[in-house]
Amino acid sequence: MTTDHVIENISVNKSFGGWNKQYSHQSTTLNCTMRFAIYLPPQASKSNKVPVLYWLSGLTCTDENFMHKAAAQRVAAALGMAIVAPDTSPRGEGVADDEGYDLGMGAGFYVNATQAPWNRHYHMYDYVVNELPRLIEAAFPVSNKRAISGHSMGGHGALTIAMLNPGRYRSVSAFSPICNPMTAPWGKKAFTAYLGKDQAAWQAHDASELMRQSTQFTPARVDQGGADDFLKEQLKPETLEAAAKESNYPLDLRIHEGYDHSYFFISSFIEEHLRFHASHLS
Amino acid sequence: MTTDHVIENISVNKSFGGWNKQYSHQSTTLNCTMRFAIYLPPQASKSNKVPVLYWLSGLTCTDENFMHKAAAQRVAAALGMAIVAPDTSPRGEGVADDEGYDLGMGAGFYVNATQAPWNRHYHMYDYVVNELPRLIEAAFPVSNKRAISGHSMGGHGALTIAMLNPGRYRSVSAFSPICNPMTAPWGKKAFTAYLGKDQAAWQAHDASELMRQSTQFTPARVDQGGADDFLKEQLKPETLEAAAKESNYPLDLRIHEGYDHSYFFISSFIEEHLRFHASHLS
Repeated sequence: MTTDHVIENISVNKSFGGWNKQYSHQSTTLNCTMRFAIYLPPQASKSNKVPVLYWLSGLTCTDENFMHKAAAQRVAAALGMAIVAPDTSPRGEGVADDEGYDLGMGAGFYVNATQAPWNRHYHMYDYVVNELPRLIEAAFPVSNKRAISGHSMGGHGALTIAMLNPGRYRSVSAFSPICNPMTAPWGKKAFTAYLGKDQAAWQAHDASELMRQSTQFTPARVDQGGADDFLKEQLKPETLEAAAKESNYPLDLRIHEGYDHSYFFISSFIEEHLRFHASHLS
Repeated sequence: MTTDHVIENISVNKSFGGWNKQYSHQSTTLNCTMRFAIYLPPQASKSNKVPVLYWLSGLTCTDENFMHKAAAQRVAAALGMAIVAPDTSPRGEGVADDEGYDLGMGAGFYVNATQAPWNRHYHMYDYVVNELPRLIEAAFPVSNKRAISGHSMGGHGALTIAMLNPGRYRSVSAFSPICNPMTAPWGKKAFTAYLGKDQAAWQAHDASELMRQSTQFTPARVDQGGADDFLKEQLKPETLEAAAKESNYPLDLRIHEGYDHSYFFISSFIEEHLRFHASHLS
């Protein structure tokens, strides 16, 4: 069976000379049908495989938010970079869910759940690290040069996935990441549900813990809005910065006065992130 | 009563050093509460009033679609141009509506309705031409240098409003406009409801009719996707082009192969439109 048979095209829109596409596929990792979006720049062809930036979105998002609102395609087209945006959780009938926006569907937190009822579908870590890139690299004219980025919950995902897989990504960046989920309400709720009460299991998915202990470095950039409503209680970039100092991690952290947690912030700085990744992907 | 009392701020987001804001106000023209969005570039101040591009959205849109999806703020910030996006119809309890997406709320068509029940609220032409700019120019650090643009139904609105008010806008542009609504299903349905069955009243709001008869010219640019599903039945740019030839109207019409009717098309060419307007506003 070729990959032509395992992914199904849902939409195609021309964008800056390239193509914005959505596909669905049956995920063996997540045990459900998943949707993802890909932007293929005009340079991508069988004879010219382009590098890929994986984008992990935040709470409540799908594969669409980034592609509609981040204004990344112009820069990706200029740089010859593909972008892949997965959904933020397993979905569908029979997939466990919660009434809160910050647990269950739309809130997979990029971990492999070990606790019932979540452990049947919620394996977003394995999906993003293994199944999705394998699919992408088989089905599209892209190389295995990878970078990873994300926003909020997805910033947490990008940082932890990059640090847990040194060498797999050339560079990592994040907007407004949850830097220390072990001490943040969003993180504590999700980690308790997905990983159980033993905080030892949480440490393996806490960006600040991982950064403090790092000995292998992936170039990292983090941007944070100074007027972000979630800054003090949920995001805690100062904890990540202190961890980077302990391990001499090459973290470029920037606080931007007046910017909030929205895509208005992301779109204002996405070009700098894409150019940062391009400098490591080329 | 100052304008401070008549507009109420709903949201503020920093974007490319400027500010994306939403306001509500009681419209005397539309006889209901209306919402609009404004992007103020970083250059705007009491001592440096900036020109304004009015953006008219298409069917089903609100003041938000363009500001979220068009990726215009980067260019507006670079050019020192404000952008104002009104809603596409009156709204609220007691405002007449229709089950179709192409009539009633979200589908005001930028005309003044003369027919019941629409004539109580649906005066989008007067709102866009008179009440809104008066409000904007009193409340914000903007000049009375104006340009106008829009998409689909809003492209129809921009072209007709510019041609009906020579000298009021320095330039006009449109993405995928309904160029000849008198002969298109969307236009026939809306004009019949809002203006009645007498087609003489329709001609005053048909871009092709107006362009054919024009003797005073506003610089005009139109971009159309070649893969737009609505191209042949609803949009008919070839009719507008023929009309421009008859009157020697300075219309710059471009067809872009492969692009569709979505914001992926608009965002791909919005920079060219903003630079076109800036060249006439400076």
